Amino acid sequence: MFRNQYDTDITTWSPQGRLHQVEYAMEAVQQGSAAVGLKSKDFVVLATLKRAPHAELSSYQKKLFKIDDHIGIAIAGLAADGRVLSKYMRNECMSHQYVFETPVPVQRLASKIADKSQKSTQSSSGRPFGVGLLVGGYDETGAHLYQTCPSGNLYSYKAIAIGARSQSAKTYFEKHYDTFTNDWKDLIVHALKALKGTTGDNVELTTKNCSVAVVGKDL
Amino acid sequence: MFRNQYDTDITTWSPQGRLHQVEYAMEAVQQGSAAVGLKSKDFVVLATLKRAPHAELSSYQKKLFKIDDHIGIAIAGLAADGRVLSKYMRNECMSHQYVFETPVPVQRLASKIADKSQKSTQSSSGRPFGVGLLVGGYDETGAHLYQTCPSGNLYSYKAIAIGARSQSAKTYFEKHYDTFTNDWKDLIVHALKALKGTTGDNVELTTKNCSVAVVGKDL
Amino acid sequence: MFRNQYDTDITTWSPQGRLHQVEYAMEAVQQGSAAVGLKSKDFVVLATLKRAPHAELSSYQKKLFKIDDHIGIAIAGLAADGRVLSKYMRNECMSHQYVFETPVPVQRLASKIADKSQKSTQSSSGRPFGVGLLVGGYDETGAHLYQTCPSGNLYSYKAIAIGARSQSAKTYFEKHYDTFTNDWKDLIVHALKALKGTTGDNVELTTKNCSVAVVGKDL
Amino acid sequence: MFRNQYDTDITTWSPQGRLHQVEYAMEAVQQGSAAVGLKSKDFVVLATLKRAPHAELSSYQKKLFKIDDHIGIAIAGLAADGRVLSKYMRNECMSHQYVFETPVPVQRLASKIADKSQKSTQSSSGRPFGVGLLVGGYDETGAHLYQTCPSGNLYSYKAIAIGARSQSAKTYFEKHYDTFTNDWKDLIVHALKALKGTTGDNVELTTKNCSVAVVGKDL
Amino acid sequence: MFRNQYDTDITTWSPQGRLHQVEYAMEAVQQGSAAVGLKSKDFVVLATLKRAPHAELSSYQKKLFKIDDHIGIAIAGLAADGRVLSKYMRNECMSHQYVFETPVPVQRLASKIADKSQKSTQSSSGRPFGVGLLVGGYDETGAHLYQTCPSGNLYSYKAIAIGARSQSAKTYFEKHYDTFTNDWKDLIVHALKALKGTTGDNVELTTKNCSVAVVGKDL
Amino acid sequence: MFRNQYDTDITTWSPQGRLHQVEYAMEAVQQGSAAVGLKSKDFVVLATLKRAPHAELSSYQKKLFKIDDHIGIAIAGLAADGRVLSKYMRNECMSHQYVFETPVPVQRLASKIADKSQKSTQSSSGRPFGVGLLVGGYDETGAHLYQTCPSGNLYSYKAIAIGARSQSAKTYFEKHYDTFTNDWKDLIVHALKALKGTTGDNVELTTKNCSVAVVGKDL
Amino acid sequence: MFRNQYDTDITTWSPQGRLHQVEYAMEAVQQGSAAVGLKSKDFVVLATLKRAPHAELSSYQKKLFKIDDHIGIAIAGLAADGRVLSKYMRNECMSHQYVFETPVPVQRLASKIADKSQKSTQSSSGRPFGVGLLVGGYDETGAHLYQTCPSGNLYSYKAIAIGARSQSAKTYFEKHYDTFTNDWKDLIVHALKALKGTTGDNVELTTKNCSVAVVGKDL
Repeated sequence: MFRNQYDTDITTWSPQGRLHQVEYAMEAVQQGSAAVGLKSKDFVVLATLKRAPHAELSSYQKKLFKIDDHIGIAIAGLAADGRVLSKYMRNECMSHQYVFETPVPVQRLASKIADKSQKSTQSSSGRPFGVGLLVGGYDETGAHLYQTCPSGNLYSYKAIAIGARSQSAKTYFEKHYDTFTNDWKDLIVHALKALKGTTGDNVELTTKNCSVAVVGKDL
Repeated sequence: MFRNQYDTDITTWSPQGRLHQVEYAMEAVQQGSAAVGLKSKDFVVLATLKRAPHAELSSYQKKLFKIDDHIGIAIAGLAADGRVLSKYMRNECMSHQYVFETPVPVQRLASKIADKSQKSTQSSSGRPFGVGLLVGGYDETGAHLYQTCPSGNLYSYKAIAIGARSQSAKTYFEKHYDTFTNDWKDLIVHALKALKGTTGDNVELTTKNCSVAVVGKDL
Repeated sequence: MFRNQYDTDITTWSPQGRLHQVEYAMEAVQQGSAAVGLKSKDFVVLATLKRAPHAELSSYQKKLFKIDDHIGIAIAGLAADGRVLSKYMRNECMSHQYVFETPVPVQRLASKIADKSQKSTQSSSGRPFGVGLLVGGYDETGAHLYQTCPSGNLYSYKAIAIGARSQSAKTYFEKHYDTFTNDWKDLIVHALKALKGTTGDNVELTTKNCSVAVVGKDL
Repeated sequence: MFRNQYDTDITTWSPQGRLHQVEYAMEAVQQGSAAVGLKSKDFVVLATLKRAPHAELSSYQKKLFKIDDHIGIAIAGLAADGRVLSKYMRNECMSHQYVFETPVPVQRLASKIADKSQKSTQSSSGRPFGVGLLVGGYDETGAHLYQTCPSGNLYSYKAIAIGARSQSAKTYFEKHYDTFTNDWKDLIVHALKALKGTTGDNVELTTKNCSVAVVGKDL
Repeated sequence: MFRNQYDTDITTWSPQGRLHQVEYAMEAVQQGSAAVGLKSKDFVVLATLKRAPHAELSSYQKKLFKIDDHIGIAIAGLAADGRVLSKYMRNECMSHQYVFETPVPVQRLASKIADKSQKSTQSSSGRPFGVGLLVGGYDETGAHLYQTCPSGNLYSYKAIAIGARSQSAKTYFEKHYDTFTNDWKDLIVHALKALKGTTGDNVELTTKNCSVAVVGKDL
Repeated sequence: MFRNQYDTDITTWSPQGRLHQVEYAMEAVQQGSAAVGLKSKDFVVLATLKRAPHAELSSYQKKLFKIDDHIGIAIAGLAADGRVLSKYMRNECMSHQYVFETPVPVQRLASKIADKSQKSTQSSSGRPFGVGLLVGGYDETGAHLYQTCPSGNLYSYKAIAIGARSQSAKTYFEKHYDTFTNDWKDLIVHALKALKGTTGDNVELTTKNCSVAVVGKDL
Repeated sequence: MFRNQYDTDITTWSPQGRLHQVEYAMEAVQQGSAAVGLKSKDFVVLATLKRAPHAELSSYQKKLFKIDDHIGIAIAGLAADGRVLSKYMRNECMSHQYVFETPVPVQRLASKIADKSQKSTQSSSGRPFGVGLLVGGYDETGAHLYQTCPSGNLYSYKAIAIGARSQSAKTYFEKHYDTFTNDWKDLIVHALKALKGTTGDNVELTTKNCSVAVVGKDL
């Protein structure tokens, strides 16, 4: 294989001003099973395809994690990295609750994850995380949906999909977003329709191979 | 030998978003002697082939370890790495017992091992562990069977096999799992039948070359 | 790709007395979306193009940050690095306010960022920041506009543009600077006109794709 | 010499899931002068060939070390590494005696050495030990004979040989083990016969070029 | 580009007994804009060309720094490195003043900078500073003019020039030094004449593109 | 020069189970000027050739060091390394005398040096010592003569020679050892005769170019 | 340039048992301007050629340093390294004076410098010093003249020269040493005559381009 010389070390810039190792870690996200998120004024819905290492005998691998009563995440990419980050987020939630006696604002938590990711791209003794997160939550300012990347970037979305074949789900959202209502049951239907597009034609979505989570007002 | 340039350092991503060193460590698991695990509602059975460095004069090398009264593990891969991890698990059990005055839940322990493995894949000063574990245990929520990988992944199974020629055992489980009962004696028979498939035709399973462990309710 | 041998390590000088890694990080700034800044006697205006990862469904990525009541920054380059630096600046502002009980002078803050950047170019265990900042602020000595680079250089400007196609905006400033007044509304118009030059012909500047900030006297 | 690319660093896995540096260290054991060990119910006998750097004027180099009253070791490989490990074992014995006021069990000590060896295979700042040990001892549970490797593996044997041309001694043990009695004088005879096979035809075993040690009940 | 193999690491000697990285850092000094210094019995004059990144809209970059009431420096090379060193010198001045209650002698300060530079050439975890300094000061023993290099060398001069096209200024000093008087106004004229030689023919020295500093007796 | 790939790092094993860097350090010993040692029941004699960097004007370089009243060493190889080790030995002697109030046994001291040497072969941040020592001493158990190597090996000898052309001296010892008496004057004669063989034919041994030391009973 | 593979790292032995980096540092000494030293019973004279970076306008660079009232040094090689070592020596002198209330013996000081140099050849995180010293001093045991090398070697001389073209001075000393008297004025004449041989034919020794120092009895 031909090797681009600038991609060995994470702390090496290429002449074009790029950090190859960060980009390769983002590729790992693109190869994870798909996850979609969408939000209305008061609700966020996250949905993921579950992959099972062995279809019949194993449980499906968890891709949705509850972080706090008002925050959940969906991951795409290295499951082990995702588990480590979710543990970090739970600790942050608890320590914020303890210090401020209020639930952590969603953006603040998403921002902490993004900072932790950025840090891992500037130190030469580790590697960028190989996982992308959809962070969905509801706080005083309403429902929020964030995407974090291995690079440390943080985006706010109304609806987004990450992971393998996520382009199809994005296209679905573009076409139909205007029709979304503030009914969380309606959002779930849209989430599943979008997720369906990321699977093969002969795969049926069942409670066994996909997970759905809802966060929102008065749930 | 042709060398893929991305596999020297554990903390280097390949352009395809893969961590080669982790994958090579998982190869070490595939070359260890086979281990199988299966569970019913109340029992978990682990069984391993023992390999002896010198058939007649040496004892067989231990592949099954008792971790606590309610937890046991089976390993495939580097025996020395497995011994180190089992020692770590025993310490975790004791310290959990000491602090909480209850036995450690099985999932919690499996999760700790997975986190320890993930950590070793993100630090540039060591190497991933070269061993896979089947963790079987029984706690308040019933019997559990987990598989951990060098990557830090953690899977829950009803029945699984790892190590050399484990595909044959997996196939056995797929065909016969529906016939498993909640009788641990029955589970042992199935475990041995599955294990038989991973050996050569002219090898007979005896108490000398295979080990069996049962964890479960009221044993 | 042909590799210049001196650009692997940040702490390696080339025979021409250059530090390639620093120059490549500055290239990352050139590829960020454009940001412009200009000042009159009493006001500084910063304006940026926002880039959205997904035009309709995502919010636009923030390129303008409020640091303190009297200081704001615009960034071009790696957004994650910019977010980390802005957090650092906010801390510096608060600690200066706390110790001296006066707002931090603009130049002092810009100087701190430059020092932090220089430091990252002399240590072999990290990488230069991949972000350029326009620091605009107003203090007892009037309005100030600074540009910081990944190299640690610090420049004072009357009007400047950084990022992709910034040359066009610079040309605009050169031609029209003499006509600038001390009216901040007038400055905003000039900022937007300059920013327009950095976009394609068929792009219209709207509140959705550009941000404007004003800092100054009695605002 | 053709170089396999995966064997430079100890912490690098090859695509086949092997750690080359560990295997090369085991090669160093294979090139040391031979050592044999055998045990009956109550006795362990260790015997080694001594190599002298200069036959007539130097003393022979020590290959058998007394660790405690009830434990001895025989080494093959780098003598300097062996001396360091034997010193470590003596310290462990003393500290166990001091804390528990009983002699250290043989398996516990062998296990400590194996753990120390495993640790040196997972750290990138050192090298695996280049020495193999036969650990013979007698404790409450009878006589024990262990072999440790640079990899950290630990085997229990009835009779074993390590070092140069050890295959011949192993073959001797396979053929004759059934005839061994529980008489330590008898064991010594067998040890020497096995050791004879690892020397050239015209070499006579004398008190000058071989050492024998016996550990056991009521000695 | 052909690469001389000895210049990667700063701590690597070439077979000719040279440290290439130090020499390359000195090249960075040669490419900075010119700085000249000259002294009489009681006065030192420093003068620099200012370079502006953008001629009309930016302020010129500072090349002359006041360190203490009796000491000033002119820099050539990396401005960011120079700013860091000047900050270091100010601290040294203040701490000397505090401890000894007298201004720091000029040579002592120059010596400290040289030691700091030497240190950075013997450690493998950083890089040599890429800046040369002219240190001018006046103390009890009269006026002093020192030049420091990235290598840590320290020279005392009556008149010297560093940076791009400095040879021309040196030649001027050689021809005219004998005519210098102890009048600082006269020295400034000579400094500017020497500096003029380092610019292109059609460049006029104005207060906008050059800076002059005088340190001396009873100023 | 063709480079064997396994000899760069000291902590890298070659496939043949060898540590090349250790072997190269031992080559440095072989190139030092010769040193011989021999012992009888009560006496040890050490003798070395002195090399002078400049025959007439310089003193000869010291190759024999007194460590304590009852111990002396002769060195071959890097003189600077030898001086450092001899300083270490003197400290060990003093601290043993202080703690135990008896002189340090010769073997114990030799063993300490060997351990220090072994340690330097297992750490990746240094290099093996490039010096071999003959340690001669007299204690309660009689006269002792040890040789230590860069590898950390330790040998006990009746008579030995190290350094350039030492083979000739070894041959002398083999032929004549049986005729040695317990008279130290006699031993000195043999030492000088052996040393003579390591020089060119036209070199005469004088008090200027060789040193002799005697340690023993009632001296 | 062809690169010998063993000279990159200071801690790498070549197969011939040599440390190339140390030898290259010694080459740096050979390229410094010459320094000579000679001694009689009661006096030591050191003399050096001064090199000026710019003949007319700069002071000459110092090559002779006073360390204490009774000790001086002359250096050849990297001046910056020499300045650092001389500072170290002054500290050692002061601390010896403070602790023992007597001046430090000359040999003890020379030995400390040699140890410091040896240390820098065994650590992989720095480089050997690139400077050679002539240490001249007078203490209770008379006058002493030592030479130290980057390798850590230490030689005692009656008369010696180091640096560029030093061979010519050595030859002078060999021819004339027998005629030296114990008169320090006579020694200075010889020193200058020897030094003259290291310069070109048309260079005249003056107080401007050479320095002379005398240490000795009752001066």
